[in-house]
Amino acid sequence: MSDSSSNAIPQYLPLRNDLAGEEPYGAPQLDVPVCLNVNENPYEPAPEVVEAIARRVREIATGLNRYPDREHIELRKAFAAYLEREAGVHFEVEQLWGANGSNEIMLQLFQAFGGPGRSALSCDPSYSMYPEYARDTFTQWHTIPRDDDFTVNVERTAQAIREVKPSMVVLTSPNNPTGTPLPLEDIEALLEVCNEVDVEGALTGVHPVMIVDEAYAEFRDPGTPSALSLIERHPNLAVSRTMSKAFAFAGARVGYLAASKGIIDAVRIVRLPYHLSALTQAAALAAFEHTDEQLSQVDHLRDLREHSARWLAKQTYKGKPLQVAPSQSNFILFGGHFDKRERIFDELLKRGVLIRVVGPQGWLRVCVGTDAEMEQFHKALTEVLRIVEAE
Amino acid sequence: MSDSSSNAIPQYLPLRNDLAGEEPYGAPQLDVPVCLNVNENPYEPAPEVVEAIARRVREIATGLNRYPDREHIELRKAFAAYLEREAGVHFEVEQLWGANGSNEIMLQLFQAFGGPGRSALSCDPSYSMYPEYARDTFTQWHTIPRDDDFTVNVERTAQAIREVKPSMVVLTSPNNPTGTPLPLEDIEALLEVCNEVDVEGALTGVHPVMIVDEAYAEFRDPGTPSALSLIERHPNLAVSRTMSKAFAFAGARVGYLAASKGIIDAVRIVRLPYHLSALTQAAALAAFEHTDEQLSQVDHLRDLREHSARWLAKQTYKGKPLQVAPSQSNFILFGGHFDKRERIFDELLKRGVLIRVVGPQGWLRVCVGTDAEMEQFHKALTEVLRIVEAE
Repeated sequence: MSDSSSNAIPQYLPLRNDLAGEEPYGAPQLDVPVCLNVNENPYEPAPEVVEAIARRVREIATGLNRYPDREHIELRKAFAAYLEREAGVHFEVEQLWGANGSNEIMLQLFQAFGGPGRSALSCDPSYSMYPEYARDTFTQWHTIPRDDDFTVNVERTAQAIREVKPSMVVLTSPNNPTGTPLPLEDIEALLEVCNEVDVEGALTGVHPVMIVDEAYAEFRDPGTPSALSLIERHPNLAVSRTMSKAFAFAGARVGYLAASKGIIDAVRIVRLPYHLSALTQAAALAAFEHTDEQLSQVDHLRDLREHSARWLAKQTYKGKPLQVAPSQSNFILFGGHFDKRERIFDELLKRGVLIRVVGPQGWLRVCVGTDAEMEQFHKALTEVLRIVEAE
Repeated sequence: MSDSSSNAIPQYLPLRNDLAGEEPYGAPQLDVPVCLNVNENPYEPAPEVVEAIARRVREIATGLNRYPDREHIELRKAFAAYLEREAGVHFEVEQLWGANGSNEIMLQLFQAFGGPGRSALSCDPSYSMYPEYARDTFTQWHTIPRDDDFTVNVERTAQAIREVKPSMVVLTSPNNPTGTPLPLEDIEALLEVCNEVDVEGALTGVHPVMIVDEAYAEFRDPGTPSALSLIERHPNLAVSRTMSKAFAFAGARVGYLAASKGIIDAVRIVRLPYHLSALTQAAALAAFEHTDEQLSQVDHLRDLREHSARWLAKQTYKGKPLQVAPSQSNFILFGGHFDKRERIFDELLKRGVLIRVVGPQGWLRVCVGTDAEMEQFHKALTEVLRIVEAE
């Protein structure tokens, strides 16, 4: 069902002035055969994972009349075990925190460190929810343009941090919707800048918190170091992760945060009590028990991405080859010179393939699906490009 | 596990200035035999309900790699069916909305209608999370004292609404932590005042939204009319409900909202996308299928409340009978002249009975547990009052 029913808010309601005309965020929810629009892992949980989830949920269901563990200690231990394995970095329970999707993690960070008179800074184009976190916490939102290849311009960003003195710097590794990797050296360089900057309106010695959003980290080339490895030396670094992407668990809504105990404690002040249900905690624990199975298709999805990226680079539109942004994620931003991207989107949709109109003008984003789904996408796109360029 | 580990936030972190020294909200989480502190329904879900939850969760678990229905349409239909049955009021899907506990419902309302320059008004003493919603949305928070019997003083509240011109008026029916009922005529009278008041800083004709928190509604005397019945005539009335209390589903974290479509659409602008997991939606649907079983102990809990209220009224402390606030909820505020309520709390805890230090000085709150739990509470309190008054 679509979100897009008419929702002009009646004039007699005291909607916040800055929300007038705003629409609920989200990709269209359409029931189509090939969904390549919201960067999910297309592979269903294995039967033994489904059984484990049902078993864990049955166990806790007898206690559902009681509130869940507000501190979700067992789940935080599971985050620790997972990150030790996936990124080779050890964390204590008090350095980890979970929430209903990394959306809620980010909102909690903005609630703790943003607010009126505070600002946050990021590098555009990036994830389109970031400005909403800022809007909903009354934090001023600044963006620094990325270079033409969508990499972060470290010098320009450093200068902006020095000028704006934000309370938060938000980086994305790899970036969404471009898939662009972010070298660890760039993060370290900008952390050094943060350490030299006093936040506007705060006392001397109060430095910006850097948030690195690693939602798609597992799709990077194996061995790519994570910003998690910098936390030990940088108590003002927060790294956000999610089970929604590579981990194939979007429906359970589990995001998590690794950071110094101080940052976690700050988030704990603003979190809603009992924000994470006993169901969520139980299901996530079951899934983490089956980490191998949940991640089993990640290598294959990486291969499919590379295959599709090569294929896309060979296609043309109006006589020019498509551009393909180098991606370390499970999606590809492609095109670059689509003068009618909504038309291409619509024609793909008619053929049962749902992708996403997002990112800079002229580009479209496709998520990596199964082999069969990518074939259908390639087939449909071939047809559609011919039709649209002839219009 | 307790939340209360040392969490002074390091000085170099840009914590919002107004959060300095704040503690995470929440009752102590202690592992004791008799938990009468967080107003849960003490009766576990029946085995058939547990099975239904596990079955529904198993069904949706195969799709957990995909995002859930952002609009949770099936669940909103279940809210409609439940409210039609419980309160005799019919709602359309677009007049209903769910979230992770009524905490999140309230936060979303404050995010939509509050903010800097806006204010919200309530009647104290009341639920201690309200000022946190205001704090976290930078909404100014005003409270009007209740009368000595904890009833809302309609005249004083009306006058305050006219003076403050808040964007939100928050009422609680029945109230927490006092249990006090709120007659429908009082709500209607204050709605009329809201309809005459233009919100401060907004255009003429923009009226306050009234939020009636009916978290404990099912514990009221059978037949008590709900504020839900006023929504048809009052598009600026929002009624919040929860599955956490009478419905015995606190662990699943499901709160919901009934209001005009305009209010729901305003909330949809600020909600995080996919805020309600597929697990939550499935488990709540399963529980609603077993509404009879989930509510089966409510009448009995009401009887136990009345029995315990009568018992408490016969007890004395320092030669004076305890006061007992008339409660229409599943908890009782009692005492009134406890000069050392923390001592009473501690001594009860030593005897394995956890209640809550909350509400005005001199009072304590106990939640209604099972027959056996209430016996243990009565026995422990008898001992403790003799010990503490002798100190």
